[in-house]
Order: sequence, then structure tokens, then C-alpha cells
Amino acid sequence: MSNTSLIASSERVLADLNALRAIGAYKTGVHKPTFSDAHMRSLVWLTEKLPDAGLTGAIDGIGNVIGVSSKSGAKLLAGSHLESQNHAGWLDGPLGVIYALEAARVINADPFISGAVEVAAWCDEEGHFGHFLGSRSYVGLVSDADIDAARDRTSGKSMRDALRDVGLSDRVRIVTQPGRHVGYLEAHIEQGDLLESSGLAVGVVTSIVGIWQYRISFEGEQNHAGTTRMAARKDAGLALAKFCVAIDTHFPAACGPRTVWTTGRIALDPGAPSIIPGRAEMLFQIRDDDSAAIDRLEALLHAMAGEVTAAGPCRVTVERIRNGAPARMDSAFQEEIEAASQVFADGKSIRMPSGAGHDAQMLATVMPAGMLFVPSIGGISHHWTENTTDADIVRGAQVFVEACRRILVQK
Amino acid sequence: MSNTSLIASSERVLADLNALRAIGAYKTGVHKPTFSDAHMRSLVWLTEKLPDAGLTGAIDGIGNVIGVSSKSGAKLLAGSHLESQNHAGWLDGPLGVIYALEAARVINADPFISGAVEVAAWCDEEGHFGHFLGSRSYVGLVSDADIDAARDRTSGKSMRDALRDVGLSDRVRIVTQPGRHVGYLEAHIEQGDLLESSGLAVGVVTSIVGIWQYRISFEGEQNHAGTTRMAARKDAGLALAKFCVAIDTHFPAACGPRTVWTTGRIALDPGAPSIIPGRAEMLFQIRDDDSAAIDRLEALLHAMAGEVTAAGPCRVTVERIRNGAPARMDSAFQEEIEAASQVFADGKSIRMPSGAGHDAQMLATVMPAGMLFVPSIGGISHHWTENTTDADIVRGAQVFVEACRRILVQK
Repeated sequence: MSNTSLIASSERVLADLNALRAIGAYKTGVHKPTFSDAHMRSLVWLTEKLPDAGLTGAIDGIGNVIGVSSKSGAKLLAGSHLESQNHAGWLDGPLGVIYALEAARVINADPFISGAVEVAAWCDEEGHFGHFLGSRSYVGLVSDADIDAARDRTSGKSMRDALRDVGLSDRVRIVTQPGRHVGYLEAHIEQGDLLESSGLAVGVVTSIVGIWQYRISFEGEQNHAGTTRMAARKDAGLALAKFCVAIDTHFPAACGPRTVWTTGRIALDPGAPSIIPGRAEMLFQIRDDDSAAIDRLEALLHAMAGEVTAAGPCRVTVERIRNGAPARMDSAFQEEIEAASQVFADGKSIRMPSGAGHDAQMLATVMPAGMLFVPSIGGISHHWTENTTDADIVRGAQVFVEACRRILVQK
Repeated sequence: MSNTSLIASSERVLADLNALRAIGAYKTGVHKPTFSDAHMRSLVWLTEKLPDAGLTGAIDGIGNVIGVSSKSGAKLLAGSHLESQNHAGWLDGPLGVIYALEAARVINADPFISGAVEVAAWCDEEGHFGHFLGSRSYVGLVSDADIDAARDRTSGKSMRDALRDVGLSDRVRIVTQPGRHVGYLEAHIEQGDLLESSGLAVGVVTSIVGIWQYRISFEGEQNHAGTTRMAARKDAGLALAKFCVAIDTHFPAACGPRTVWTTGRIALDPGAPSIIPGRAEMLFQIRDDDSAAIDRLEALLHAMAGEVTAAGPCRVTVERIRNGAPARMDSAFQEEIEAASQVFADGKSIRMPSGAGHDAQMLATVMPAGMLFVPSIGGISHHWTENTTDADIVRGAQVFVEACRRILVQK
């Protein structure tokens, strides 16, 4: 068993990432919604690369690619995702897949290491059809009924139709084999500016925050925008705007130090310029790694809604539609990532929670899991201008491959 | 020339209105977007009714129906519209068309009256493709380029495609013949609760308010909803909500006694639950019959936008996209409607401005114009529950026919 560090190939990693960027390119980023032509071509590209890493694999019945090794010894699963948000960045997802592929290329070919890295691209991490459908399916948490119900949030197309159109209807969904893997490791861009602003190279993820999502609905009275006196109105849109501002006023006193909250979507019904909205709806999200803070904020939301309803003229309803417990990352994996950072990044690492959700939180329900972050320029994410310097990409790959090696040799 | 009152047939008026309600029925209202099958069948229904009123006419190249008379003497034009807002009321539009048709049936057949009522159904008063495209076309204010640019606000379909699909591409657009008409008279439901709450039967419209419309845009920075700290955010959606609330706070001190304002539509970009909106946009409308009040409010909007932009973190832009001067109704027409109300409604009429826009404001640019309102139950409008009692419908028809007669015999 070797104790020598193995080195990722910077040329190979950058070439692969740029090859994936060229599929579905949008400005300097990409546009690869789940099951789009660009997404499917990216998955095929990956399956064709697997043999170079001593792996075999195909696209499964939910759009996951999982490359498996026949090498003896411990197996470490590693990966991320290849689809993107609409008109978004080139590294969000592909970085983790290519690091995993590179780790497999370096480690699986090494006869002195007993064990192998297996590579996964999880489908729909970006939630076009749901949330984490690919990795949730792999850990056994997606039923056929869940798939029946899933629809593309942009087009409304059903997931069944989408699977049929890309030719995956008849394939089985691969699920985890208990005990096969010693754990799961994922790399990702930070999507924030902590590493960059602190001059650091690696984020060692301690936990992935839980995401709680709410549908907050406002019911007033639809009426004519010209003939209804201001005093007689029950404007659901105005009630919604006031609620957003009240959240902004009251949350800071009740939240935790790392809580974030976002109103990502607003719809007024019927949404015509000459009609007072009779109904309005907002999608509201809270993230924290501290469930107690979430409990306080959810109670506050309900109290605020009650007060608004009691005061009139509109009725407010708060409905929780997603409930995500925080996921702890394995502490031994955190130590191996730190040790790898000592070798390849002058120890410029920091332990930090992840404010974004990642497939690792799903894998963490069935095996030890770890994550590492590389810096994001300006902290920009989910936008086509998202970027990371080549130097940071390469350094991250070296740390990742070394962390994989260390995890395998410890087992 | 007769000086005897002529009486509308209550059975005929109610039967016609119910026949139109049956075309495109939705609950107790109708769903007849412009150029929908239900709208087109309603127009055909009207053209088939014209001969009974001594009129001939067809659907023209923009979807207007104009029934003309060959009778000698003065001509009064009367009408309204047959399409509806989406899932809206059965009387908004059809009431005025059927009153006009009934006036033509009663008056045009009377050999003792020199003159005739001509009937119009103006296309797209409800603004699916623009605003008042039909009546504006008739008064000569719509260019071919305007039609090229028009799109259905719900489906995005171009007006050219819609005209082609309903077979109107090759028809000419009929325009007003200067001097042909002594004026234009239109009846409509009030769409407010003044008449009902005051126990009155007829509203004599003095003016139609101007409608000013604005696109207010907010520019922040699109980012990840999990990884971006609250303090670092430039949330365009939150800036929009704050702006709505600020309007609600500051407008009452600057507006006139009858000013109304409405935010009818809000869009966050990209509108995904896990992305901080980088851009947001609201459609904002102000209505008043007093241009000075509008000037004050528009200046206030710009001042507020300047303050928000200066304070940061988002940039606000206010763009006026529609500018509608108030239209005065002819004073002699107002007197004839009041006189007719003395005969048929025990004088239970009141002079009032119209807070809603109507085709009469377009006709008023080329001829004397008048309008009368009948009560709306609960003031409800642009919703399928919109309604008026049969008694009020019939009384309104009698007043309308008598007002038409009086206007014609004065000429």
C-alpha cells in the first residue's frame, strides 16, 4: 500500500471542464436544464470517459451515471452533477464530477492502492423537477409515485414524459448496495465569498444546512383597478409586499448567526395591469444548520400571518412544502481533507458549513460523507458569470485526489 | 318626428344577454379572450342579429363589428365590446352591445324617427393584445406597425398570427367617416359600488379617467440563496416589495380625491426558489381624471426611485409605458341621459366619472360621446361573479333606448 501522494493532472482536469463547458455553452457559462439535449450529451460524454478511469457505467433510469470498478479493496464514491440552473455557471456540478473522474484515473490505475474511486453524476441536483431526485433515488428515497408527480418547474413537462423523450423510460434506477462504499466525497465551488475574501484555497465542509421552504398565500378580493376605491380594496399583492418587508424587519432579531432567507418567486393572480390581485403567492426559503433557529423563525412566520389575517383585509396562509434537516459531514473525512490541504494548499483551508444544498446530504443518510469547496470569484453563483481561477481549480483537484487516497488507505 | 317614448323589450334584452353568456360560459360568467373561439362565435352571433335591427355589417380586419343603416337622417353610433377578461363577468361589454342592438331594433323600425342607431362591437377593449385596439383602429389611431407589434399578454401569440388563424388577415379595417355620426353612446356596468350603495339606477358619466401605466424595474445581483450572506445581498425582489409599501405610504398625501393606483403584476428574475432575484419588475397603474394629480404622483415616483437607487443596494428605474389623458363626455348627452332617467328610472341618476377606461374615450376623440352606467352587485368586476339584477338591466335598457331617441330627435 503506497503512502506517496499522487498528483492530479492539471491539463486533463482543465481540458475536461472546458469540454463540458462547450456542451450547452451560454456566454461564459452554460445552459443545461435537466434532460435538455446539452445535459444528455454531457452524460454521454462522461460515460465515454469512464473506461479511462477503469470504470464501467451507463445512464440509469433516473438520469444518474454511476461508474463502477471491478478492482478489489475499499471503494470510495465521489461525484456531483452535470445539469445546470438555467443560464448559469460552468463549474457548479461539473467541477465535482471531473475531480472524481480524475481521482479515479489517478488512483484506480495505481496497483499499490488497494481500493478504487467510483464516479457518480447525480441527476437534477439543481431541482428542475424536484430536489435531489437523482441522489435521493440512489439512496432509496424516491418512489415511482414521486416520479409520477414530478414536473419541470419551467416548462411544466412531466418527468415521465421527459424520461420517455430522452429514452430512459425502460431503464432501471440503480440504488446503493449497503456496505459497498466506505463513504462519499464531493467537491464543489463555494458559491460564496468566504474563501476568496480570506485568501484561502479549500473549504472543509462541516455540515450542509437544512432547507425549509414555504408557500405563503394571500387571499384578498379580485376587482377592477379603476373603479374600486382605495379604501374598499383587498389587494393580495400589496399584502404580500408588506409581508416581505415585515420578514425583513422581524427576522434579524430571531435568526441565528448563519441563517439566510429568500423570497425567490412571487405570483399575483390574475397578474393583469388593470385588475387588483385577488390572490398572491410567494415561495419563501430559510436555510440554517441549526434546527432550533428554524423552529423560532417558523413560529414567527405563523404569528405574523395570524396578525395580518386578524387585522385584515387579506388572509395569509403559511404552508411548509419542504423540510430539510441539516446533514453532518464525517469528522474523519474532514481531517483527511485538511491533511491533503497541508500537502497541496499550504494548509490554507478552513472548516465551514455549506449554505447550499448538495447531493452529499442525501448520500450522508446512508454512508459517511464529506465535501470540500474551492473559491468562487466574487462569490457569484447560479449566474453565467460564476467562475474560479484555473490555479484554484487545479489546486482543488490536487487536494481532492489526495483526500481520496488518504481516505482509501485509512480503510 | 315622434316625441313619444319607445320601450325596450325586457324579454329580448335578457334573452340576448343570456344567449351571449352561453357562448364561452365559465361558472356564472364567461371566458372569452380576444379571438378565442367563444369570442369569434359571439361576433358571428351579433352579425346575424343585425338584420333584425335594419343593419348590415360584418367582422372587419381588426375584429370590429359595425352594423350600418341605410335609413336617412341623423346616425347615432352605439356599442361596447364582446370579448372578456380571462374568467370574468358576463355583462362587461355585452350589456352595452345588446342595449345598442335593442335601441337600433326599436328606433330604426320607427318611421316617425328620422335617423338611426348604428351598432358597434369594438374588438379587444379588454386589452389582451394592447389597449382599445378596435376602437382606436376605428378612429384612425392604429398603424399597421402597431398591429405587427401587438402580442397576446397571456400566450405571447402575435396579433398577426391570431388574425390569420381566425380568418381576418385579408379584411380591411373600417374607419370612421367624418360627419357620419352625431355622436357615440355606450352603456356599461358601473364596476364599482356607488350606484348600488346609494340606491341609484343610472350613472351619467361626466368623464373617463386617464390611465397612466409604468414599468418599474429593480436591478440587484442574482446569487445563490444559500451561500450569500444577508448583508452581502442585492435582492431585487425585496427592493420591489419595499417600493410597493413605500407607494402605499406616500401616495395618499399627494393624490387627488379620486386617484387610484394598482400593482397588477410582479415578476422576479429568474424566479427560482433557491436564487436571489437579480432583477424584478412591477406593472404599476395610476388612474385619475385630474392630470395635475398624475403629474404630482409621477414626480413622486421618480423621487422615490432616485432615493432608493442612491441608498442602494438596488437600482430602480421608472418608465412610463402608457399615457392616457382623461376624456370629457358631451354635456348635451349627459342631459339627455338624465332626462331619460326621469322617464324610466324615477330620476334615480347621478353624475359621476368613470374610473375604468372604455371605448367611448377613443370615440370621444372624433365625435361627441356619452356613457351611462347600471349598478354592479357588490361592485365586483373582472371576476366571474360580476352581476347586475335583471330589474337594473331592464331599467338601464329603457333609459338607454330613450336617451338614444332623445339625442336623435334633438339633431
